[in-house]
Amino acid sequence: MNYEWRKNFLDIKPYTAGEQPKTADIIKLNANESPYPPSPAVEKVIKNGSFDLRLYPAIDPIELKNAAAKRLGARNRISLTADNIFIGNGSDDVLAAAFRAFFNSDKPILFPDVTYSFYPVWCALLKIPYETPMLDGSFNINAADYYKPNGGVVIPNPNAPTSIGRDKDFITDILEHNGDCVVIIDEAYVDFGCYSAVELINEYPNLLVTQTFSKSRAMAGMRIGMAIGSPELIEMLGAVRDSYNSYPLDSIQLKAAIAAIEDEDYFEHIVSKVKATRERTARELTALGFDIPPSSANFLFAEHKILSAKDIFEHLRKNGIYVRYWDKPRISSRLRITIGTDEQMDKLIACLKELIS
Amino acid sequence: MNYEWRKNFLDIKPYTAGEQPKTADIIKLNANESPYPPSPAVEKVIKNGSFDLRLYPAIDPIELKNAAAKRLGARNRISLTADNIFIGNGSDDVLAAAFRAFFNSDKPILFPDVTYSFYPVWCALLKIPYETPMLDGSFNINAADYYKPNGGVVIPNPNAPTSIGRDKDFITDILEHNGDCVVIIDEAYVDFGCYSAVELINEYPNLLVTQTFSKSRAMAGMRIGMAIGSPELIEMLGAVRDSYNSYPLDSIQLKAAIAAIEDEDYFEHIVSKVKATRERTARELTALGFDIPPSSANFLFAEHKILSAKDIFEHLRKNGIYVRYWDKPRISSRLRITIGTDEQMDKLIACLKELIS
Repeated sequence: MNYEWRKNFLDIKPYTAGEQPKTADIIKLNANESPYPPSPAVEKVIKNGSFDLRLYPAIDPIELKNAAAKRLGARNRISLTADNIFIGNGSDDVLAAAFRAFFNSDKPILFPDVTYSFYPVWCALLKIPYETPMLDGSFNINAADYYKPNGGVVIPNPNAPTSIGRDKDFITDILEHNGDCVVIIDEAYVDFGCYSAVELINEYPNLLVTQTFSKSRAMAGMRIGMAIGSPELIEMLGAVRDSYNSYPLDSIQLKAAIAAIEDEDYFEHIVSKVKATRERTARELTALGFDIPPSSANFLFAEHKILSAKDIFEHLRKNGIYVRYWDKPRISSRLRITIGTDEQMDKLIACLKELIS
Repeated sequence: MNYEWRKNFLDIKPYTAGEQPKTADIIKLNANESPYPPSPAVEKVIKNGSFDLRLYPAIDPIELKNAAAKRLGARNRISLTADNIFIGNGSDDVLAAAFRAFFNSDKPILFPDVTYSFYPVWCALLKIPYETPMLDGSFNINAADYYKPNGGVVIPNPNAPTSIGRDKDFITDILEHNGDCVVIIDEAYVDFGCYSAVELINEYPNLLVTQTFSKSRAMAGMRIGMAIGSPELIEMLGAVRDSYNSYPLDSIQLKAAIAAIEDEDYFEHIVSKVKATRERTARELTALGFDIPPSSANFLFAEHKILSAKDIFEHLRKNGIYVRYWDKPRISSRLRITIGTDEQMDKLIACLKELIS
């Protein structure tokens, strides 16, 4: 067989995603999904909405952008308009577009060594040079590592899988030292109690903040993400989108996103519940001998003082509880545990007690 | 203001999409959308389906791939499995992934000079060299233009905006002369009466066929596309997807696509209606002095022997009828007219009669 036609294949290694077990009766704490459903307004708009599916979606989803600008402006006490908002197919799509739009330097971009594992994958795909300054021994990002010449900066806040969030002083320090490149703050988990850089958008035209509907809005199954930034950055992201796939969201996603963003009360309600469950779970796990950094996210990054992460992972898995474990340097002693319902966390704790005793 | 941070922006020109007028009472014949709604099974699954929107969609949409393999296998009398099917966010997303995956040669890829205007946009974005052999005077692709050394070949069949489809001999000829690169046959409009190369998938491992749910399945608003090819090509497309955005379709899109693909009767019904309306419209327009190549698509590529395309376009637009006109070399004398309902085409013809008389 002639396989000459394979010579022009792109040279990349397939990225392997985490386990997505299908059994209904498992406790799924491995993908930082919400244990609560989206706002009832989302289900209502899907079931009762009138969608003209024959036609292409709006090329410019202005209603969703207005809704997001209004909501984020009010929350951060600044003035935002639709020109500050970019909408994409989950924040992965948004981040990939931003990497492509803004990181075209010969100098390396900078992001932490322990962070979201998609950053180096996009760099490989888009041939972006990068360096990964090491987190310190307590998993904190050292701002001074980001003072050197670079082609761009990506700071997840809070970081994942460490769950650690940083404050306004830290973010401002990064921005003040990087006025000549684009700085992306990836705020996938920000709503669970972390400082948001959205309030700085009008002060730093090179600041892009990315957020997602997958976590605090409980819509991982709907693939909606957004970026907030100056009109210059947002226009450039639009140009990249329109050079790749003009309609990343369908007509149903666009309306469901508006319904979600307008139901502020429900959003606050489920975020508070997750935070309360997180604090209680952290206390109980600490009592069982786990070390857990203070979490600003919807997950905990837990290391047991005696048992190995791998053994705990396998014990939990055998009992139908899925958490995330990586056999990787620097983090192989820890588990990332998504905050579920109180009942799910009770089962997790009971299962861990059984192992530890 | 320091604008130094703009120095690493990607160097592209924003792509401008066609007009999407929002008024409800216009006749929209400018985007090759379906005049009929999707299968009632699609609406049913959206309104009555149970979606766990909290959770990420299946990383491998195996049920949809099985449904597509079964349907396309039966239609083309060959054996296909899920390993032959790739699913993406509209066929634009599928084609962009394929360009990236397969066109990494220093030699130019080849596609016609008059064709889908997104091909050169992807080439610019992905830095793929390309050449565009000219269609002949009757807008036919000359197979011999594709015999020379190249980095890949893209043939839309039927071509757009010309509407002209080619037969098995033509496609086989292209494949026989291009065994050492990937050949993409873009079949966005194939269901309206054109030869499909899907039947050749098991004979040519370097053949990738792309199709969309936006036209014959009336789901432009849902953003679903697919590619059919050898397991080697499909695996590589998956690697590209998983290096960019692992979940291009949401949980609702995945189920709606299955509902659409399984309702074969409805599909045949609306495709036949569009074809019948097309033949009648072509006859009537010809009687009014238009030259129209034989169409294998859901649109006509019409030139009037006296009136200019621009004048006709503007007259129709003033009367609330939107068709597509390009002020571009080679095609500025023609209009692309989407086939609507019989009633819509009657109004179009009446409006044209008014202008011509």
